[in-house]
Amino acid sequence: MQNKSIVLTGDRPTGPLHLGHYVGSLLNRITLQDQYTQYVMLADIQALTDNYENPQKVRENCLQVVLDYLAIGIDPSKTTIFIQSMIPQIAELTIFYLNLVTVARLQRNPTVKTEIAQKGFGESLPAGFFMYPVSQAADITIVKGTIIPVGEDQLPMIEQTNEIVRSFNRIYKTDVLKECQALVPKTARLTGIDGQAKMGKSLGNAIYLSDSIDDLSKKVMQMYTDPGHLRVEDPGKIEGNMVFTYLDIFDSNHDQVQALKDQYQAGGLGDVKLKKYLIEVLDVKLRPIRERRLALSQDLAYIKGIMLAGTQKVQIVAEQTMREVKQVMHLDY
Amino acid sequence: MQNKSIVLTGDRPTGPLHLGHYVGSLLNRITLQDQYTQYVMLADIQALTDNYENPQKVRENCLQVVLDYLAIGIDPSKTTIFIQSMIPQIAELTIFYLNLVTVARLQRNPTVKTEIAQKGFGESLPAGFFMYPVSQAADITIVKGTIIPVGEDQLPMIEQTNEIVRSFNRIYKTDVLKECQALVPKTARLTGIDGQAKMGKSLGNAIYLSDSIDDLSKKVMQMYTDPGHLRVEDPGKIEGNMVFTYLDIFDSNHDQVQALKDQYQAGGLGDVKLKKYLIEVLDVKLRPIRERRLALSQDLAYIKGIMLAGTQKVQIVAEQTMREVKQVMHLDY
Repeated sequence: MQNKSIVLTGDRPTGPLHLGHYVGSLLNRITLQDQYTQYVMLADIQALTDNYENPQKVRENCLQVVLDYLAIGIDPSKTTIFIQSMIPQIAELTIFYLNLVTVARLQRNPTVKTEIAQKGFGESLPAGFFMYPVSQAADITIVKGTIIPVGEDQLPMIEQTNEIVRSFNRIYKTDVLKECQALVPKTARLTGIDGQAKMGKSLGNAIYLSDSIDDLSKKVMQMYTDPGHLRVEDPGKIEGNMVFTYLDIFDSNHDQVQALKDQYQAGGLGDVKLKKYLIEVLDVKLRPIRERRLALSQDLAYIKGIMLAGTQKVQIVAEQTMREVKQVMHLDY
Repeated sequence: MQNKSIVLTGDRPTGPLHLGHYVGSLLNRITLQDQYTQYVMLADIQALTDNYENPQKVRENCLQVVLDYLAIGIDPSKTTIFIQSMIPQIAELTIFYLNLVTVARLQRNPTVKTEIAQKGFGESLPAGFFMYPVSQAADITIVKGTIIPVGEDQLPMIEQTNEIVRSFNRIYKTDVLKECQALVPKTARLTGIDGQAKMGKSLGNAIYLSDSIDDLSKKVMQMYTDPGHLRVEDPGKIEGNMVFTYLDIFDSNHDQVQALKDQYQAGGLGDVKLKKYLIEVLDVKLRPIRERRLALSQDLAYIKGIMLAGTQKVQIVAEQTMREVKQVMHLDY
């Protein structure tokens, strides 16, 4: 069917994927690939915007991220995985779009504002980072994406994309470009094992899909619980206790989780015992992923092949979009 | 010889070329094409930065500008003429370079500052215009340009390009990119027929290479002379008198010009007579150009062919540069 919606998501290949990605977006992609045409982009150029001094790392992470994808069940026969830097049309579109967006508008973008503050760029804000909403609009529109799964904090990016689409279509009297809509997941962002912030590589509070059972155990054992819960017999708190946060998400046996909560609050359930239980729950989920990942990692040429085959498919789509765009811009010499 | 210097110049195809272009850069290119490898870029994408609502005009002007080039003696067997928008690697390089330049640095660029003020953008400054020094750095480096003929006011652009080249080479530990040097013409900018500002299309004070003899005559007859010079027998002023400014530049018979100056200052030389003399001088230069241009314009397919053949040559050069760039950036999957 021609009118099937087109989903675009992606990841910055700056490190292996973790449970936060798994819950927040990866699981969703497994559902989406059965319903829509789905593209998943390895945003290597966007990763370079704040990793430009370490390109080798970005490159290696591309393969690691694809390993993660396949291990969790993203099916390359249903989902097209591609590398951003191999689609030059994205850069071309970005340059065209930069004419349609004012500097003042970029300065007002709330997502960019927040991220600039978070990263503490100050005077050293790279122009590439400043204009990345425009480049995202190019990512989305080059494949004519219509459904974009993003976190709530990314909604201004979607709005920026649609503004560009409307400007372009109005100026060039066309409907070549399509507006898109955000698909915001219902699940809250997964907090890291420290209980402090959302799980993130740079914060050292992440459990990776590729973690060994030893690493997994060690991280759960460090998990933030209730600092007031010193002896087994003491009553403990549930709120803010990461072990229960994780059990609520990952243990489908809700009665069992409720029983543990009751016991913990009453006193008599030690942190170590509780954590061992969570390790088991997580390991049931992660062991098959880890094993599939290990098996797949024996043949990196195959993984690279998946990535390049997907990229080739997108090259054809991107050429077609660019042909249409250049035609309405009278750039089809 | 491999180490031959590489010249890049170009024009924004926003209108036909005029005497200001002729004196300021076109004549120079005829000399340069015998000494160096010379590329001349039709900067259609850059033209779109402030003509994005009129792409058809930009496209038509490409052919007009190539007609001007060939008519004045730019030889396509020596000079490679190409279209910016057909070299996607320029967009790719621009995106890479945007990571190496801060927003603060772009805000400090004196050329951009001046042009922003001149064009009165204010709050509506397009991001594409704001970052065009970065895109110029990509234009230059994609063909590894080493000699860049520019006006004095463009020197900060060359400095910006070399900053980017040095950052790139340092970060990626390479010497793939080459620094360039400006070649500033000795001739002053040609003032328009109104005597007010440099000759420019938007100011309506230009004499075009393609002007008919009637248009040429009409424009010279409107030329600013000495408003105090009312009667033939009155003494007239030389300074700021456009007719003499033009004679100084275009009449190689300096003795004759001096004699006219003497007579004009003493009184007894009327503006009409003087202007008729200038029309003759200009027509000697412009008639052969006009005639060649007219002949060439009978076969626009040939002109388009020249443009596309040059573009194809540059596509090969650009692919090679991009291969080297992506290799050092570890983007050669």
